[in-house]
Amino acid sequence: MQRTELQSLGEFGLIKRLHQNVKIYHSGSALGIGDDAAVIDHGTDQYQLMTTDMLLEGIHFDLSYYPLKHLGYKAVTVNLSDIAAMNGIPQQITVGLGLSNRFSVEAVEELYQGIYYACEQYKVDLVGGDTTASRSGLVIAITATGTVAKNRVAYRKNAQINDIICVSGDLGGAYLGLQVLEQEKQVFLANPEMQPQLSGKDYIVGRQLRPEARTDLVYEFIEQDLVPTAMIDVSDGLASELLHICQQSQMGAVIFEDKIPIDALSVETAMDFNLNPTTCALNGGEDYELLFTIKPADFNKIKNNPHITPIGYIREPSQGVMLHTRGDSQIPITAQGWTHF
Amino acid sequence: MQRTELQSLGEFGLIKRLHQNVKIYHSGSALGIGDDAAVIDHGTDQYQLMTTDMLLEGIHFDLSYYPLKHLGYKAVTVNLSDIAAMNGIPQQITVGLGLSNRFSVEAVEELYQGIYYACEQYKVDLVGGDTTASRSGLVIAITATGTVAKNRVAYRKNAQINDIICVSGDLGGAYLGLQVLEQEKQVFLANPEMQPQLSGKDYIVGRQLRPEARTDLVYEFIEQDLVPTAMIDVSDGLASELLHICQQSQMGAVIFEDKIPIDALSVETAMDFNLNPTTCALNGGEDYELLFTIKPADFNKIKNNPHITPIGYIREPSQGVMLHTRGDSQIPITAQGWTHF
Repeated sequence: MQRTELQSLGEFGLIKRLHQNVKIYHSGSALGIGDDAAVIDHGTDQYQLMTTDMLLEGIHFDLSYYPLKHLGYKAVTVNLSDIAAMNGIPQQITVGLGLSNRFSVEAVEELYQGIYYACEQYKVDLVGGDTTASRSGLVIAITATGTVAKNRVAYRKNAQINDIICVSGDLGGAYLGLQVLEQEKQVFLANPEMQPQLSGKDYIVGRQLRPEARTDLVYEFIEQDLVPTAMIDVSDGLASELLHICQQSQMGAVIFEDKIPIDALSVETAMDFNLNPTTCALNGGEDYELLFTIKPADFNKIKNNPHITPIGYIREPSQGVMLHTRGDSQIPITAQGWTHF
Repeated sequence: MQRTELQSLGEFGLIKRLHQNVKIYHSGSALGIGDDAAVIDHGTDQYQLMTTDMLLEGIHFDLSYYPLKHLGYKAVTVNLSDIAAMNGIPQQITVGLGLSNRFSVEAVEELYQGIYYACEQYKVDLVGGDTTASRSGLVIAITATGTVAKNRVAYRKNAQINDIICVSGDLGGAYLGLQVLEQEKQVFLANPEMQPQLSGKDYIVGRQLRPEARTDLVYEFIEQDLVPTAMIDVSDGLASELLHICQQSQMGAVIFEDKIPIDALSVETAMDFNLNPTTCALNGGEDYELLFTIKPADFNKIKNNPHITPIGYIREPSQGVMLHTRGDSQIPITAQGWTHF
């Protein structure tokens, strides 16, 4: 029997291969796999959105520096970020939890405090769950639902030529926060007397440990009467997400290196680690900002918004997906999903 | 800081403690934690149901005798069983998968074949997923949705005095199938030349490896114009499920040992293992049959149904939850959830 290694396909290749023959039996399943969330039509004027994300110990988090409360919070917000990426407002979550017996009840309660705090912040109802033992590490599987008016849903696939590419917040911070945490862990392992030096790094460490979903922008878009032509959340890095939008919209794009919003602390920290800040923004991931495209006519609606930065525009597919560098050259953007396998 | 062990609370105690302070923000979240599925109201004449279940390697399955195709099938059907237990018809699932690199692409495809086969059998749409690496074992987290007409939803809490307690199919088989599989594994480990002896045990091995959701009964109830007053699926064993119905309905009950449906092969296999067949039915679990109560006036609707067995009736809470034994004594029914911790 043939044996193909998971590594040889990678995450996106595997997902594509597994889902190529998926059949849909219900007309209510308006959109299945391939966007930030599934779209379900209940015959009302709203769509329901549904998304699921799993966090596994040793892959997505390291409990040696990840406070359980933050982890619970993050496990919720990364799902709500997928709802925001469809231009939706979150409604419900279910929580599946695999716990080994090294956890005390108090530790599980701390994790749940983070889950509940996220529910409170985002007004989300925890409606179901499954709690079980785990032979190995901590497993958190959350499914989130949301709603969006049918005429306001934002897919990845509808970016048009000349649409302006925008991104919320700043990028690269979560990845650089992780580098700081990993470094301090190594220092601590080498000498347990040493206290972790995180002072001054609060912003980027917070970006890693306690990401937010940009539901605030979804509300702003409603106020502005703005519907992005395409949208995705930045979980794998700007490069990967832009490629998703361009591939699914069958478009090309150019983004300008000097426009990519990167916080000063992120730049400084990147330098300390001998990393290129732009590379951190392009490939770092986990910022959970929104990357979206808008019609040129809508530019006035966002131009004074301090949370939104225009970084480029959509072009003909034949022009590729390019980064216009500070040195005025254009280089193709490439990316792959996280290849944990 | 205090440390309370998970074992000291058990599964149900932990779930109760974690969810005692849950807040609900949306009126659409009609029912949260505490039944087989959450109930979501989209303002139509139907409720949406939503449930999640996680299967972890080493806890819920042993890959040394669990074919991946069967495992994929079971991971879906155990969720659909929760939808059936609310008297609902399944609609969509999302699949979260944690895979270690010892799995080949072909192995993952086999798992997915089982998932797709269940989707086809039950006409369920696979609409979303998350596939990630796992440092340890295989993790499968599925969330399922379903729908039920608002006037047909069956909770656990509405059983009334004199209602007839019914169960579908037969009980104890899945547990006994597991005993057979475990025994053959031990034989094989002791002597790898030995072939597993499963012939003649097909029925109970199948009950363990490939359980079905009783969606067929949900359709029969519609045809019969029957709505159970309370319903639950038998995942932890008859005793535990009956106690859930009685506690949530604030009722007592008596069931008759000689009425509990147990297949002849299950009885024979129980004897071989020196187990009491009734105990296997009461505490075995994983049969995924439906336990439900109906009004006495509805008895004619089920009395000739070969898939349904009346096993007792609901009484005053002061009379407790009792088993009327073959020896004509009444003993209290006790149970606990699976305490894997």
